[in-house]
Amino acid sequence: MATVTETASRLDLYRSLARQLRADSIRCSTAAGSGHPTSSLSAADLMAVLLAGHYHYDFAHPEGLANDHLIFSKGHASPLVYAMFRAAGAIDDEELMTFRKLGSRLEGHPTPVLPWVDVATGSLGQGLPIAMGVALAGKRLLRAPYHVWVLVGDSETAEGSVWEGLDLGGHESLENCTPIFDINRLGQRGPTELEWNTDAYRARIASFGWDTLVIDGHDLDEIDDAFGTARAARRPTAIVARTIKGKGVSFIEDKEGWHGKALDPEQARKALAEIGAAPPSRTFAVAKPPAWRPDPQKTPAKVQLKTYSEPLATRKAYGEALAALGAARADVVVLDAEVSNSTHAEDFKKTAPDRFFEMYIAEQKMISAAVGMQVVGFVPFASTFAAFLTRAYDFIRMAAISRADIRLSGSHAGVSIGEDGPSQMALEDLAMMRAVHGSTVLYPCDANQAAKLVVAMADLRGISYIRTTREKTPILYPADAEFPIGGSRVVRGGGADDRVTVIAGGITVHESVKAADALAKEGIKIRVIDAYSVKPIDARGIADALKITGGRLIVVEDHWVEGGIGDAVLAGLTEIGVSLTRYQHLAVRAMPGSGKPAELLEAAGIAARDIVEAAKALLG
Amino acid sequence: MATVTETASRLDLYRSLARQLRADSIRCSTAAGSGHPTSSLSAADLMAVLLAGHYHYDFAHPEGLANDHLIFSKGHASPLVYAMFRAAGAIDDEELMTFRKLGSRLEGHPTPVLPWVDVATGSLGQGLPIAMGVALAGKRLLRAPYHVWVLVGDSETAEGSVWEGLDLGGHESLENCTPIFDINRLGQRGPTELEWNTDAYRARIASFGWDTLVIDGHDLDEIDDAFGTARAARRPTAIVARTIKGKGVSFIEDKEGWHGKALDPEQARKALAEIGAAPPSRTFAVAKPPAWRPDPQKTPAKVQLKTYSEPLATRKAYGEALAALGAARADVVVLDAEVSNSTHAEDFKKTAPDRFFEMYIAEQKMISAAVGMQVVGFVPFASTFAAFLTRAYDFIRMAAISRADIRLSGSHAGVSIGEDGPSQMALEDLAMMRAVHGSTVLYPCDANQAAKLVVAMADLRGISYIRTTREKTPILYPADAEFPIGGSRVVRGGGADDRVTVIAGGITVHESVKAADALAKEGIKIRVIDAYSVKPIDARGIADALKITGGRLIVVEDHWVEGGIGDAVLAGLTEIGVSLTRYQHLAVRAMPGSGKPAELLEAAGIAARDIVEAAKALLG
Repeated sequence: MATVTETASRLDLYRSLARQLRADSIRCSTAAGSGHPTSSLSAADLMAVLLAGHYHYDFAHPEGLANDHLIFSKGHASPLVYAMFRAAGAIDDEELMTFRKLGSRLEGHPTPVLPWVDVATGSLGQGLPIAMGVALAGKRLLRAPYHVWVLVGDSETAEGSVWEGLDLGGHESLENCTPIFDINRLGQRGPTELEWNTDAYRARIASFGWDTLVIDGHDLDEIDDAFGTARAARRPTAIVARTIKGKGVSFIEDKEGWHGKALDPEQARKALAEIGAAPPSRTFAVAKPPAWRPDPQKTPAKVQLKTYSEPLATRKAYGEALAALGAARADVVVLDAEVSNSTHAEDFKKTAPDRFFEMYIAEQKMISAAVGMQVVGFVPFASTFAAFLTRAYDFIRMAAISRADIRLSGSHAGVSIGEDGPSQMALEDLAMMRAVHGSTVLYPCDANQAAKLVVAMADLRGISYIRTTREKTPILYPADAEFPIGGSRVVRGGGADDRVTVIAGGITVHESVKAADALAKEGIKIRVIDAYSVKPIDARGIADALKITGGRLIVVEDHWVEGGIGDAVLAGLTEIGVSLTRYQHLAVRAMPGSGKPAELLEAAGIAARDIVEAAKALLG
Repeated sequence: MATVTETASRLDLYRSLARQLRADSIRCSTAAGSGHPTSSLSAADLMAVLLAGHYHYDFAHPEGLANDHLIFSKGHASPLVYAMFRAAGAIDDEELMTFRKLGSRLEGHPTPVLPWVDVATGSLGQGLPIAMGVALAGKRLLRAPYHVWVLVGDSETAEGSVWEGLDLGGHESLENCTPIFDINRLGQRGPTELEWNTDAYRARIASFGWDTLVIDGHDLDEIDDAFGTARAARRPTAIVARTIKGKGVSFIEDKEGWHGKALDPEQARKALAEIGAAPPSRTFAVAKPPAWRPDPQKTPAKVQLKTYSEPLATRKAYGEALAALGAARADVVVLDAEVSNSTHAEDFKKTAPDRFFEMYIAEQKMISAAVGMQVVGFVPFASTFAAFLTRAYDFIRMAAISRADIRLSGSHAGVSIGEDGPSQMALEDLAMMRAVHGSTVLYPCDANQAAKLVVAMADLRGISYIRTTREKTPILYPADAEFPIGGSRVVRGGGADDRVTVIAGGITVHESVKAADALAKEGIKIRVIDAYSVKPIDARGIADALKITGGRLIVVEDHWVEGGIGDAVLAGLTEIGVSLTRYQHLAVRAMPGSGKPAELLEAAGIAARDIVEAAKALLG
């Protein structure tokens, strides 16, 4: 039990720190001329108590796996988190004043350009589910002592992803994660839906499996108790803090029209006088985490891939390669959105059940958890139907800003899935994934190739994506063939008398092979290139083929006409200065319905007979 | 009060219909060789009672605005909904047996190819929030007598969008919508997270503002009561029905491994024997809706657009044009995701508050509600930061399959937003929107143009998208200029001595103009084309320019290098057989940080000086 004096001095410490966090939030945003001081002020007391009383973090060693984690899901409160880094002595005042300026690490919203930031936030509703991923890895994989704290805005609880994240935490009993809801009543353009109805927040959060502490977010003692309780709790425990936006500065407290607005210098002067803090700022001690190291990982073994000679779906090869990878490497983890018997991620589950994570039908949660797990060093693969990765596009986009290394697998690509119809057909996934910064986009056509690409993905940085096919496809490659990222493969032709180049991917490689064989019977030789690496595309290889075939090119793909292999090829070729003389792009142009895979390929005009026709047209 | 005999005969009727729905669900899926009979059987009793006892629908007049709505959010239970259409006499047995076959209207998952289907489902978690949109329009706009029924699977409650939808219904008090949760305990690959924990479902649903009736989903009397109560309720009321997957066929009831699997003919024979129904099927009477017509709409007036001569942000012009459109047309509705003071949708709210809908920060809900509103004839515009439309990509994709006519506005495009940093910068939105089937993608560079394009969007079919800019931009066009969809505009040059063609959009049009003026001083004439219509792109116009400029082309855009204007131009040109001799693509290639708009344009290499340099390189 703390004595009265100890308590008083602790509260004094918190009060000093809160004052400094408020002052620094205002100072840096006023210097920037933009930013979100009022959103910072509402949470300043919460974060002061956290930093000085409950956060265990070695700022000199951010890579330490025992460190606590703090994620600002309300990323716009960046002045506050930077003020915390300043208070901890991680950055100096000069750097704090570079906030939002060109070249500064202190961007408008936090990103891992700063070593103490796990992930980029700023697209609301993402930090909470990502935090759950960090906590899940801590609890189920590392058994680490760290606690994950996540500051959540009230406005962002409108995002369904917040409830997906809370569901994960409740279901997995993540008592090592504490979401702190900053209920300051005001959103960007006015009152939030629930304003200060903390009963409603409590009921919602509790219904997703959480104990919920409702507190006054400006009562330092109450905050202190709540954080202590939450950290010690044996059940997932969330904090709902009633706060005042702009707290501490009378003329902006609980006022509309002050979201995302910096104080002008005169207003800032008044505000700082009210707050009563004067720079230069103090450095406050932050508790170090306990001495702890994770169990040493086993040395990775050589991956023992299956080899294939009989037709097999690439999605099945994906699953089997994952299983082999999981057996060889202890850092590989797999997440799936309740379709692991379709994506075949279940093959991994069978061999490494402790590293398989069922995310149910919640793709946003799946990507978030994957991003969270890679924060602490794991190598996540996440899979669902490729069409349903569209559900998580914002999370994939943000993962790139987070400099996250995650691997995605989308099965059931294109019209060739057959009877299930267009809702289940990915026809925009290549476009979507190509337009992710630094991404790698792969699209195997046979099982041996799929297996090799899966293994390669484990060591890729950034966002990598493999598109797999529902139907069984013939084996084109020997098991020892290699498929470097950025390469391509000639699967038919290759001689100096090839007259047309056909670029295909996945299912259409097989249609192109059929076309080549049919044309060969008529004495027409074509070169078929398997563009298994859609990004980067092998522009040089294609250009070499075009020299032989007189610039005649067909691209055939099971994808909408926009943004897929066709666009990738054209962009790649023009980038290296190669122009086309005659081009045909066979892609999906009309809305498909149901039917057999072969029927739908024909209906879309991307079947063998269409390629034959296109080749003749180019020659004729 | 119904007499005992009346009740008995009503229950007999329900029982007969349920038997037929079960039998037809099995028959059509067995004939197809695929489909989801077990997911249909769990809800057969619910749907029998609905169709024969509570649904008010004139199948001969699906366009009637008084008709109830039924949305299968669990779209995979399509055999059941088609069996209902069969029972209502809307389709015959022969058509029922075309299920999942090429050319059939009865696709694997329902789509509005069928006139009695409002929207496509099959991507889980979408039907419920869309239903809320239909209900919202019924309650707040049409004051229509219709009731919206939505059949929801238990697995799909893992999707955050379900909670966004329930939040909307609770907040707007949509007592005219009844979600029916079919809690059959089994998902695709095994048990659901909550299995039969109906208490957990009740608590969650109730916490989002709903009265919740928990029933036995196979007790016809209990179902009947619940539907009657829900329809009559003055508060939003949901039904949580405990059901058994495969109910009615002993060997598949509550069994794993039966999701999405048709019975083989022998199994089907046994199943039909158990169910005790024999074709040909009966036609059951469905109650007609009451005679009702909406208030006649005022004749649309001519849209009185503001005209601009001073620099203005195109997002502001968007808002003002929306307001003008709203004043002229009563069918235009606007939705915004809590950023209407940034997107400027608030200008519409000021003039037509009854047709403005605040969706809070929930982009999936916003798109769903827009799709729901267009089902009953409204013309929705939905706006948020363009970056955050990625959050709703799956909903936009599905809206295209729904043949929905919706208009989207994304503000804050590209690095030119400045200090807020990459999380708020849309750099993939053009790629994403181009790859939507049948979409139109617009990108104005000045206020007069933005206003005209907004008006044009109101009459576009399908998904249309306008990308707006945060910063003020100069006025380039007179107020009476016209901007046809699929067109482009020459803003500098145009003579026979132009030496380089520059294609730009939005903010980069102004950089290109600066570059042209700088080059002109050095005696180098370039032609600057404003590609305000990104899809369809004006390939012919660009080709004409290229003829003049000797094939020399620069594309400059504030977007990632993939999928944007560059890809659109290359695809458009090659499609019409035009080849490039010399090409430079200026686009965003490195991850941006914070900074001033002008600084970030320069850092990305898409500023005037970069265009000048690229032009000289092409000429040099």
